[in-house]
Amino acid sequence: MRLFNYWRSSASYRVRLALHFKGLPFEYVAVNLMKGEQSGASHLGRNPWGSVPVLEVTEEGKTALIPQSVAIVEYLEEKYPQKALFPTRLVDRARMRAMVELVNSGIQPLHNLQILNHLKDELKTDPKPWSEKWIGKGLDALEAMAKDTAGNFLVGDQFTFADCCLLPQLFGARRFASVDPNRYPTLLRVEAECLKLEFVQKARPENQPDAAV
Amino acid sequence: MRLFNYWRSSASYRVRLALHFKGLPFEYVAVNLMKGEQSGASHLGRNPWGSVPVLEVTEEGKTALIPQSVAIVEYLEEKYPQKALFPTRLVDRARMRAMVELVNSGIQPLHNLQILNHLKDELKTDPKPWSEKWIGKGLDALEAMAKDTAGNFLVGDQFTFADCCLLPQLFGARRFASVDPNRYPTLLRVEAECLKLEFVQKARPENQPDAAV
Repeated sequence: MRLFNYWRSSASYRVRLALHFKGLPFEYVAVNLMKGEQSGASHLGRNPWGSVPVLEVTEEGKTALIPQSVAIVEYLEEKYPQKALFPTRLVDRARMRAMVELVNSGIQPLHNLQILNHLKDELKTDPKPWSEKWIGKGLDALEAMAKDTAGNFLVGDQFTFADCCLLPQLFGARRFASVDPNRYPTLLRVEAECLKLEFVQKARPENQPDAAV
Repeated sequence: MRLFNYWRSSASYRVRLALHFKGLPFEYVAVNLMKGEQSGASHLGRNPWGSVPVLEVTEEGKTALIPQSVAIVEYLEEKYPQKALFPTRLVDRARMRAMVELVNSGIQPLHNLQILNHLKDELKTDPKPWSEKWIGKGLDALEAMAKDTAGNFLVGDQFTFADCCLLPQLFGARRFASVDPNRYPTLLRVEAECLKLEFVQKARPENQPDAAV
């Protein structure tokens, strides 16, 4: 498998967490978002939406490209179920996916690079209050949901796909807004628990080959 | 099952399509977004993020609430697999989910009610060029992906979850932007095919009990 991704992209970080959790080997291919490589012809050929990550896999003897972090992780769970990243009970799976989507479709799309650049360059407005508003509102909702479901991790005591979304969202939040520990006690407790795990270290942005200070 | 939803919400429309496709009976509970009911205490108790839809189900003898359209439809597919809304082959499932997420996390979050209101009321900018830009970019990418995967429907000749996302996205696009038939031949051909189906008629916004002109 080859993963087209970028060290600091939060959706890329989600997929790296899933791959390292399952112990699946993959080739790391960097797509430099700062140089605009996601909008170049090569990458648009892989994914017309021009986002990372994209996972290249072999299925039925043919190469296939899968964009979108949620589609990739659902694929990995179906293809390699041995080390499960999803809970077993239907209700827990649903709660996990609801938290995944709160991050994936609720929070992250509002403060990715293309939106922040558009606010700054086209609308001539400071993107900071925008980021703080939507990240704050989203993390408040995630904290409220997590209070009902969390054990050591977001859904009980098992590391799941929801945790794969939490870590990058908090990493991203700190770049663009403040993360008040008194406001997010459950999320930060779970984050600290996750950061003790060795596979998590392998997936962190600062430990990737294309990481820049 | 009870579905807390709103006739014109595109994420609500996705879930209604899935429920009617599978022939599952449900109680329709309207949450009026125009009156702000999604941000009232009752609805925030169901979903701290304050979005619709939310599906109320009974699991292991207890009531559970599932927010987020993708989490709801994945749950329905796992719980009621008899009439499958997902393809069988892994690669088709991945492509389907990639299209679902292009709509769910790529396009729709940028032109929902809270964002358009914020642009107008807080940033004092016309939301129309914003909607046209992001909806246009998103539908261009969806058209490019669909060219590779579509038969009568977005993924081959089977109605899937991707089609449940296409119909509401085109419905929403027409409210906020123009949809040029020459630019989206595949998407509009598939839409026309879907609109022939009887269960689709049951799910359409204008056929819901809370529909207003």
